[in-house]
Amino acid sequence: MNEIKIFSPATVANVACGFDVLGFCLDNVGDEMIVRKTAKKGIYITKIEGFDLPFEADKNVAGVSALALIEDAKPDFGFEIEIYKHIKPGSGIGSSAASAAGSVFAINELLGRPYNKTQLTYFAMKGEALASKCEHADNLAPAIFGGFTLVKSINPLEILQIPTPNDLFATIIHPQIEVKTSEARAILPKEIPLQHAITQWANVGSLVHALHINDYKLISKSLHDVIIEPYRSKLIPYFHEVKNASLNAGALGCGISGSGPSIFSLSKGVETSKNVEVAIKNIYKNTSIEFDTFVCKINTQGMKILS
Amino acid sequence: MNEIKIFSPATVANVACGFDVLGFCLDNVGDEMIVRKTAKKGIYITKIEGFDLPFEADKNVAGVSALALIEDAKPDFGFEIEIYKHIKPGSGIGSSAASAAGSVFAINELLGRPYNKTQLTYFAMKGEALASKCEHADNLAPAIFGGFTLVKSINPLEILQIPTPNDLFATIIHPQIEVKTSEARAILPKEIPLQHAITQWANVGSLVHALHINDYKLISKSLHDVIIEPYRSKLIPYFHEVKNASLNAGALGCGISGSGPSIFSLSKGVETSKNVEVAIKNIYKNTSIEFDTFVCKINTQGMKILS
Repeated sequence: MNEIKIFSPATVANVACGFDVLGFCLDNVGDEMIVRKTAKKGIYITKIEGFDLPFEADKNVAGVSALALIEDAKPDFGFEIEIYKHIKPGSGIGSSAASAAGSVFAINELLGRPYNKTQLTYFAMKGEALASKCEHADNLAPAIFGGFTLVKSINPLEILQIPTPNDLFATIIHPQIEVKTSEARAILPKEIPLQHAITQWANVGSLVHALHINDYKLISKSLHDVIIEPYRSKLIPYFHEVKNASLNAGALGCGISGSGPSIFSLSKGVETSKNVEVAIKNIYKNTSIEFDTFVCKINTQGMKILS
Repeated sequence: MNEIKIFSPATVANVACGFDVLGFCLDNVGDEMIVRKTAKKGIYITKIEGFDLPFEADKNVAGVSALALIEDAKPDFGFEIEIYKHIKPGSGIGSSAASAAGSVFAINELLGRPYNKTQLTYFAMKGEALASKCEHADNLAPAIFGGFTLVKSINPLEILQIPTPNDLFATIIHPQIEVKTSEARAILPKEIPLQHAITQWANVGSLVHALHINDYKLISKSLHDVIIEPYRSKLIPYFHEVKNASLNAGALGCGISGSGPSIFSLSKGVETSKNVEVAIKNIYKNTSIEFDTFVCKINTQGMKILS
């Protein structure tokens, strides 16, 4: 195999209660990449469509993760990468993670899969770090493993796959405003009340349990964030209106996707998920803010080989 | 049925990472109670063996929880309670919880089980509050439900039963020193670093996942407490020596049981658990502190009817 075309999915990090550790993978929404072997060693980004991103491999998220992989694998050939970017950078649904993970997933396939998914995440973290200034895996893990993931630790890197109930759908709204990840980080307190932390870890434990036993009601009761949301929701206009509309329309829960500005809702069944979409559209369509919305199943596969 | 004899088990709260929410139930170690119907309405404690505790129902933990139950059930008869107390008050393995839970469990049986386990926990919390000055359920839940439990919330009371791997054994050491629950509470910080909280909720999520999938290695990796242990371990002489000895002897993890002074270890298999017991005995037998130790399987049943 000399060439591969892959789909690299968008993802939702944090999932309300699980700041910095939980994430899930979206279906249908994501980037595409074509990667092919080249005689010349190295990583060459030959095409970028969709958004204006650097072509120099060491300045491009997909390039940096690919470079980290080939530095370890040392193949006696190189790779050229075509990036068809559909996830807007800065949207809060793992745009840089899709870039960072896509290139290493594709190269691993072309090399005959010498690396497992955790190792691929490790290389992808190098690319993710270029975008967000720190190594984290809460979007990379669901992109690479699929479904719900828990990043138990970064060093050593340890990723757990949590079961995904079959009838779980996500509704996403992406308001076209800029929330800088650095600002979203800076707004957070360094210290938090112990009582809030206890509430949060009860919810994390309860959500993991609920996902194992397919208990949608318990999923709903667990999707609360008493720590991050009170701060970051200030950066997202109409967040509370969207959340209320979403819950009133039957969503199991609603929260900030990653560091925002996208907002996710989870629902049981595609029909409820579409009702939620209508409800949150109604909030934003009366504002001057441009936005887009979509509904999708949780993607339990993660990366996909298209051809 | 006019009389019942029950076994009310000792329990371990917190389980390293799950302060205030997680707990598990011990086997063989616990109190016994005989409860019988009386023509006269009310709760009458007629016998207490083992430790010196008040006979007045409204000053006795088992009495207060029983009073809370009959205030709701309003039976046209009463109950007398004989308490055979084996769990030393203040030992950190749920002595007051065993008292509070035992009486309501027994009375519920004599009434024909009008209440479910969550409702029994609710009544038992009234007794527990007499002992610890605040309503909590992290020892009551495992005593009443058995196995591993997660108290998702107190108000409304919501208790989750987490699966218990079959080959999990606990080793307990109880140093005969006094650690006042009030002091153990007062020593804790009101605010904690966000980064520590993230580590803790990753471990809670990971432990719940590990218990679901019977992954002993992951149980081991999850049994860490970066928040409470650094403070409370100061109140327990030789805690770190016991922990090191326990882990070196093969324990999966080791931590403070409840608010101490007891220390628990979890091991895969009874043999490792006994090796851990020998190792921690060796730490304490060179000190002037009296102590006792025991090994037991995790009790997945909780309360038991003896006759």
